[in-house]
Amino acid sequence: WVSLVISSPGSSSITRLAKKKLRVSADSRKHGPAVDFNDPDWKSKFQNDFATRFNIPHITDVFDDAVSIPSTFCLRMRTPVSKEFAGGYPSDEEWHGYINNNDRVLLKVIHYSSPTSAGAECIDPDCTWVEQWVHRAGPREKIYFRPEEVKAAIVTCGGLCPGLNDVIRQIVITLEIYGVKKIVGIPFGYRGFSAKELNEMPLSRKVVQNIHLSGGSLLGVSRGGPSISEIVDSMEERGINMLFILGGNGTHAGANAIHNECRARRMKVAVVGVPKTIDNDILLMDKTFGFDTAVEEAQRAINSAYIEAHSAYHGVGIVKLMGRSSGFIAMHAALASGQIDICLIPEVPFNLHGPHGVLRHLKYLIETKGSAVVCVAEGAGQNFLEKTNAKDASGNVVFGDIGVHIQQEIKKAFKAISVPVDVKFIDPTYMIRACRANASDGILCTVLGQNAVHGAFAGYSGITVGICNTHYVYLPIPEVISYPRLVDPNSRMWHRCLTSTGQPDFI
Amino acid sequence: WVSLVISSPGSSSITRLAKKKLRVSADSRKHGPAVDFNDPDWKSKFQNDFATRFNIPHITDVFDDAVSIPSTFCLRMRTPVSKEFAGGYPSDEEWHGYINNNDRVLLKVIHYSSPTSAGAECIDPDCTWVEQWVHRAGPREKIYFRPEEVKAAIVTCGGLCPGLNDVIRQIVITLEIYGVKKIVGIPFGYRGFSAKELNEMPLSRKVVQNIHLSGGSLLGVSRGGPSISEIVDSMEERGINMLFILGGNGTHAGANAIHNECRARRMKVAVVGVPKTIDNDILLMDKTFGFDTAVEEAQRAINSAYIEAHSAYHGVGIVKLMGRSSGFIAMHAALASGQIDICLIPEVPFNLHGPHGVLRHLKYLIETKGSAVVCVAEGAGQNFLEKTNAKDASGNVVFGDIGVHIQQEIKKAFKAISVPVDVKFIDPTYMIRACRANASDGILCTVLGQNAVHGAFAGYSGITVGICNTHYVYLPIPEVISYPRLVDPNSRMWHRCLTSTGQPDFI
Amino acid sequence: WVSLVISSPGSSSITRLAKKKLRVSADSRKHGPAVDFNDPDWKSKFQNDFATRFNIPHITDVFDDAVSIPSTFCLRMRTPVSKEFAGGYPSDEEWHGYINNNDRVLLKVIHYSSPTSAGAECIDPDCTWVEQWVHRAGPREKIYFRPEEVKAAIVTCGGLCPGLNDVIRQIVITLEIYGVKKIVGIPFGYRGFSAKELNEMPLSRKVVQNIHLSGGSLLGVSRGGPSISEIVDSMEERGINMLFILGGNGTHAGANAIHNECRARRMKVAVVGVPKTIDNDILLMDKTFGFDTAVEEAQRAINSAYIEAHSAYHGVGIVKLMGRSSGFIAMHAALASGQIDICLIPEVPFNLHGPHGVLRHLKYLIETKGSAVVCVAEGAGQNFLEKTNAKDASGNVVFGDIGVHIQQEIKKAFKAISVPVDVKFIDPTYMIRACRANASDGILCTVLGQNAVHGAFAGYSGITVGICNTHYVYLPIPEVISYPRLVDPNSRMWHRCLTSTGQPDFI
Amino acid sequence: WVSLVISSPGSSSITRLAKKKLRVSADSRKHGPAVDFNDPDWKSKFQNDFATRFNIPHITDVFDDAVSIPSTFCLRMRTPVSKEFAGGYPSDEEWHGYINNNDRVLLKVIHYSSPTSAGAECIDPDCTWVEQWVHRAGPREKIYFRPEEVKAAIVTCGGLCPGLNDVIRQIVITLEIYGVKKIVGIPFGYRGFSAKELNEMPLSRKVVQNIHLSGGSLLGVSRGGPSISEIVDSMEERGINMLFILGGNGTHAGANAIHNECRARRMKVAVVGVPKTIDNDILLMDKTFGFDTAVEEAQRAINSAYIEAHSAYHGVGIVKLMGRSSGFIAMHAALASGQIDICLIPEVPFNLHGPHGVLRHLKYLIETKGSAVVCVAEGAGQNFLEKTNAKDASGNVVFGDIGVHIQQEIKKAFKAISVPVDVKFIDPTYMIRACRANASDGILCTVLGQNAVHGAFAGYSGITVGICNTHYVYLPIPEVISYPRLVDPNSRMWHRCLTSTGQPDFI
Repeated sequence: WVSLVISSPGSSSITRLAKKKLRVSADSRKHGPAVDFNDPDWKSKFQNDFATRFNIPHITDVFDDAVSIPSTFCLRMRTPVSKEFAGGYPSDEEWHGYINNNDRVLLKVIHYSSPTSAGAECIDPDCTWVEQWVHRAGPREKIYFRPEEVKAAIVTCGGLCPGLNDVIRQIVITLEIYGVKKIVGIPFGYRGFSAKELNEMPLSRKVVQNIHLSGGSLLGVSRGGPSISEIVDSMEERGINMLFILGGNGTHAGANAIHNECRARRMKVAVVGVPKTIDNDILLMDKTFGFDTAVEEAQRAINSAYIEAHSAYHGVGIVKLMGRSSGFIAMHAALASGQIDICLIPEVPFNLHGPHGVLRHLKYLIETKGSAVVCVAEGAGQNFLEKTNAKDASGNVVFGDIGVHIQQEIKKAFKAISVPVDVKFIDPTYMIRACRANASDGILCTVLGQNAVHGAFAGYSGITVGICNTHYVYLPIPEVISYPRLVDPNSRMWHRCLTSTGQPDFI
Repeated sequence: WVSLVISSPGSSSITRLAKKKLRVSADSRKHGPAVDFNDPDWKSKFQNDFATRFNIPHITDVFDDAVSIPSTFCLRMRTPVSKEFAGGYPSDEEWHGYINNNDRVLLKVIHYSSPTSAGAECIDPDCTWVEQWVHRAGPREKIYFRPEEVKAAIVTCGGLCPGLNDVIRQIVITLEIYGVKKIVGIPFGYRGFSAKELNEMPLSRKVVQNIHLSGGSLLGVSRGGPSISEIVDSMEERGINMLFILGGNGTHAGANAIHNECRARRMKVAVVGVPKTIDNDILLMDKTFGFDTAVEEAQRAINSAYIEAHSAYHGVGIVKLMGRSSGFIAMHAALASGQIDICLIPEVPFNLHGPHGVLRHLKYLIETKGSAVVCVAEGAGQNFLEKTNAKDASGNVVFGDIGVHIQQEIKKAFKAISVPVDVKFIDPTYMIRACRANASDGILCTVLGQNAVHGAFAGYSGITVGICNTHYVYLPIPEVISYPRLVDPNSRMWHRCLTSTGQPDFI
Repeated sequence: WVSLVISSPGSSSITRLAKKKLRVSADSRKHGPAVDFNDPDWKSKFQNDFATRFNIPHITDVFDDAVSIPSTFCLRMRTPVSKEFAGGYPSDEEWHGYINNNDRVLLKVIHYSSPTSAGAECIDPDCTWVEQWVHRAGPREKIYFRPEEVKAAIVTCGGLCPGLNDVIRQIVITLEIYGVKKIVGIPFGYRGFSAKELNEMPLSRKVVQNIHLSGGSLLGVSRGGPSISEIVDSMEERGINMLFILGGNGTHAGANAIHNECRARRMKVAVVGVPKTIDNDILLMDKTFGFDTAVEEAQRAINSAYIEAHSAYHGVGIVKLMGRSSGFIAMHAALASGQIDICLIPEVPFNLHGPHGVLRHLKYLIETKGSAVVCVAEGAGQNFLEKTNAKDASGNVVFGDIGVHIQQEIKKAFKAISVPVDVKFIDPTYMIRACRANASDGILCTVLGQNAVHGAFAGYSGITVGICNTHYVYLPIPEVISYPRLVDPNSRMWHRCLTSTGQPDFI
Repeated sequence: WVSLVISSPGSSSITRLAKKKLRVSADSRKHGPAVDFNDPDWKSKFQNDFATRFNIPHITDVFDDAVSIPSTFCLRMRTPVSKEFAGGYPSDEEWHGYINNNDRVLLKVIHYSSPTSAGAECIDPDCTWVEQWVHRAGPREKIYFRPEEVKAAIVTCGGLCPGLNDVIRQIVITLEIYGVKKIVGIPFGYRGFSAKELNEMPLSRKVVQNIHLSGGSLLGVSRGGPSISEIVDSMEERGINMLFILGGNGTHAGANAIHNECRARRMKVAVVGVPKTIDNDILLMDKTFGFDTAVEEAQRAINSAYIEAHSAYHGVGIVKLMGRSSGFIAMHAALASGQIDICLIPEVPFNLHGPHGVLRHLKYLIETKGSAVVCVAEGAGQNFLEKTNAKDASGNVVFGDIGVHIQQEIKKAFKAISVPVDVKFIDPTYMIRACRANASDGILCTVLGQNAVHGAFAGYSGITVGICNTHYVYLPIPEVISYPRLVDPNSRMWHRCLTSTGQPDFI
């Protein structure tokens, strides 16, 4: 029996390190079903199991009597995109522009014949292809909420991430296209459900028209907040029956709990999440919004570090980038810049000292190139730092500053060998987080925002929206938050990064 | 019998309009094989046919005696990323970090059960899933060129596109990692093969280190050039046995002809293309380099038009964006900006005049909103302009200026009804083309450049590199250049654009 | 007798060409007083005449009984900046932080002993120093309007210019600090005074808080509008007694006429202008707001033209920049970029054809450097273009497009000699105009906005605000608008530009 | 008797605090001559004294026999700007485009009649105007070096500052226009004179053509270095007879010492400084290069802090900006942004705690606005930090981090009163320093670089170049480095900043 990982197909992200551990632990609940490859029916069983897990909750699951009405979505356009547009194909009867509930998107796309290729994924030893499908996102022909009866609320939780305003804006605009009049923003995250001094913010197209031109969140963000039960009380009191929640893993756990509590209270409510993690560490998804902007903005910091390092005598520039558990930002920013000599991420262990350590390689770089630039993810090398038990309001452990630590170790090490060195450390975190979304994220946010509303009107709840294999999908919340998506050190992308930096391994 | 289209899975790009026509014309040569769905074996036949077409030419096709040597790629690293890194899995014997020649990437990913969903693709009436696989890109364990015997040349053809320098840079760096010493740039496109006054430019890491920080092409570009035979003569004379060609459809046709001529002359040469089209109109690929940057930079022009329009009394801003046959830039730029009221692309016919025309809608917008912003692809509405027979050196028809035409028609129309209107026209084309690549394109270029070199060393020739379904692939040149990729007016992406602009259809 | 020019000391801007003409025409009314240097008292006479001309109109000129009250300005701060801050000096009694009405700023600063230095200015043949002083801007101790009785209006006229929103914002904020509650924006320039469908826009700190983060004008702009008499009627009807007018020469002429009409009607009104000309062509001022941003943004276009030119075979890039009568933007943008080979401005005549023509030099550049970049002000070379009699709503002659003309002439000329050439023309005008102000202009706008309000409260009317010799001043409107400020072809700045471009003269 | 301050006229920068102290200490040597106002000839004595102090050293001071030749400057142009250009005035004989050695620029420009106006400067109690003139910069008709005998060297010292590459570039280009062939860069500051492993970098137009497009210094910078005597030994050995030194106060002190040592050794050498201080703290100058860019780039950090603060519940954003002794960057950045609530600079003392302290005001802001943004210069509030004796290689005391200190104090203070607060601290220093120069600084650098070369060829040595009252001047080094220029807390500019922030005094 083997424990399996359902990986993100877009980027080969689950570490084999993790896999190996899984093999030992066979932790089938968390990371996927156990499969008996000797069972001749294992494939269909596996696929059935997968289909079950990735089924998405629907309002009719608990409300047998829920009735749908024809969608009000396209009708809101002045002249709906008509069948004539379609050039007569499909025929007039067939075509309407909606997504069929049975539409599916394929997760896995790599096929190979032996398990030896870098970064490829396969679930069985002989690498037979196994299809795994998830629900396609988009507007449905039938909707389960009458627009005039909807009171929709939006809440943004956690830290800042480029694109929050784009998603808020698009949710509001799409709700209005459906015909919803009552749209409010809950201020400052879940906290806004309970804090008496904080008022709901009425939202409309007029209010949100230009908010995507600035970073931050119109509604404000915060960590922590009241209990699930208090939140649902507040929703009942306010009459909210559509709730759009933008946040990370913790926030989504909350969203799922809210969804369950609403079901338990038999409230006819749609709870839809939009994954917000600048670290890009949500399972299964090609990327999350804000990530592309973060990589783009990180270029400024990296280029500054490069210039400081190259303009100084024996200059070393260090840039610390976001990435608590996963090094996607650091890896992509390093690749994009072409200016990084050493990239350190949480998924790839490294030594600072010793014959293969980072410091030794830095000495080599200083001797041969005269300067060096290091890019380190905030979660890398936490083993070198004293543990604190401090946690933030989201329950995340407060990390020590690996950038400062490396800076100090470099200074000490070079002082010890009497080689001058000029180390500059740059932490651009807040300047990256507070950016407005770039065009690519702007599109991603727009589509996620539209699809969040489509999903809610279609009667789904307890779901989140994402992009898999370039297609937009709905996923059940629990499947994407069980653990953070990681960079696979055996993936081609990490190899490309190593090709670009020229760094050896540091163990 | 039905003619089929093998579409880009990543973005649902072939128009159904085109499809419909295909059904009638059954143009099986150009757009895919004819399939007899009554044949019970149609699937396997179809897949075989597909596999044959997407097989990629290899040096051993003509040189039976070609011998491979172990790759020099990873060995160039100081300490190769070792199997220990991999956490013991796959086992030491299995793992080496290369791509297996049998690795394949799946093209199609959408599955659905009825042909009624917007923008989904299926090849047979009952929409049974049919797998279509293409070759995965990446470093191979065995290479067919000894680095010390390689003289590699790079040439950039056509117009400017963000990222050219990034690709040049990465090809040079990767060649050096393989151990190649002789690398040259051919100046000013194919023209550089013949023009006596133009010298080869020696390339090395030192030369290319920072070229990606500026736009343009270090090597220069130009259209046209000498005959295939002259080019191959020149290659023989110069001793070039690896040729990397960056260019669009026409350039790739040339690349394929060079490949064939080399084979005919029994020259052991690898000819590898890297598709360069800012319009993003290459078949099958998720996107081409420069496109993302173009969409990003177009935001400046759109925002300027928006501000001019909103600050003027009855202001109309018009932005013309690139896109000769396909409106990807206009569509994505409109979606990203959230500031466009009317988006016009070549794939979607429109009237300017008449009850459903653009001008009527503009009047409506001026009356209700006070201003409007129009985004038009350069190839849209060419039917309204007087035909010229002028062609540029690449053989492309010189287009009339649709932006200026619309501006004039608006002025005339509003003058006729005595409504003041203030129309500003912005053509940001050159300011977009000349930009340096953004981070996202920087990564794309890096990976394409690395893979172009991997492909050449692996012994492939007559291929091009691209990204399909988020994975990097090698494709035979003829399959990607038979016609330009188009926006599918029934795709979800175009629907999303319409949702965002709120525009009706203009027919 | 000699006709004199009172020049902007900060930038040596009046052409000697103009001067020479003045010598002939002795146009003493427009350009300065006639001076008889044989009169032993000519200096004191000249200075008295100057002082008279630069005296600024005050409310007490017509309202003998106007009473002042102590300023409400500083008192609005929570804790006024106190004398203790001043470190005890000047003594407590002396210090209050206001500007004395008798404060003056010196206009001229260059002193030299012979009239042979490039770009220096002197009014008499022996170059004796003659002091010329103007009124210093800033808050006065006594004010002539009670804040609670003020209804202030702001209007923006003409074309867009970076910084309009910054000035609007700061006027509103400063008015609120004084205690004004009634502040409105007149929409779309002078037109907004008459158009019935256009409503006043109520303004407050809340409304304007973030408007400086976007370009354009919150209030909208337009050219033309109703008659002076209609405007003043409207002001009476609306009860406006402070009017802030942002616009160029024409708008300021209107502002002065409004001021005079109000005086004629014995309305106790303060009319204060803020010069808005992206061309930087206002007499006497170091610079006008928006100019610095325009020069900054022009760098993008120039760099694009440079990259297009250098990446093409025999590439020529042409950038057309703003500058109807004066070439400040072109000159400064060329100097800043270091990438311009030829800079053409209205003040310096040039030939295109002939042995000293621009085309001949271009041929030389193509032969020696392989490419060239040209920067041309829109008003340059109008003599080569067919005259039209078309005028815009502001009464400005509509110019022909010199950029397109040069592009065509280059193509023709090189075709005639069978030398290939690849000419790209960029017109970034709207993309520059619509920018938000950069930091330097942001400060300039802030100070001009504050000083406009200080001037109005101090009881001045018919004035405009500006910066002379790094100090902020009030000037009587007629003295700054008699004709546009020009680049002096003998100034050091133009010489520096020639040093940078290396261009010869083209006559 | 009264001690006087010769202030920067452009920006009223000397604190009255400093003045007051001066009155007491009568430190006439450092800050200006003592004046006996009872002496009826005090004015002429004062002016003579001033003229003496601001006389600039010339090669003929020590080399009586130094002969000049006609300038080779204009002759290097293909067609020199001719007298015809000048429109016949001055007459053909007079005009040549050079600067006369007797040209002077006026320092002081404000005139007022009573000593009560904010920020105005006057040297005598009755405020009679006293003229103070300095030497005008620019090309001279006669030069004292034969271009073919010149070996010019450029060295950049201290920390990075935007524009270094622009100045280097323009010095090289202008030297080449004069006809100089031997131009070298000394690597890594003064250190490069002695370090054997560091080679001179040959410089030419080709090398420097595009270096201004990146930040940093092509030559590298460093602090410290060998003794004056070693430097001059090295100059003799290398045959350097023109030395251009870019650096701050300490570097200029070194430049002056080098100049004196060369004189002592009777070396015919021109030593010319270009003041490089991002802090803008050089006496007498309107501004120094890099300052404008720093203010511009600081906007990013401030806007990020603003967005973080406004998106958080009870958010406080803190930005630390450069400014060791003087708060120009902080003051200007605050003014430009319009987003700062509290601006703290070294020149204005403040308390953190207590009834008038910063923390109390923050509490008020949190209660009323919900958030606050603080901008603090690095040198402000050093009295709150534990003193260290650490100094950097330039001999500057290493400062404690006031930004971190304020962050901690805020957290403590709000915790003590149980009010939640979310404090984000941003230090953008390296990201600002490493920027390329903006257009405005690009022009400043261009003119300074040209004038540095003009000054050297004109035979001046021991001078530095700068801009005073919008005109370019030469100044003797000792007069500009006696102490750092400071923000005058009684100046209008600081008042404008307070008007913008609305902050009270914190004492």
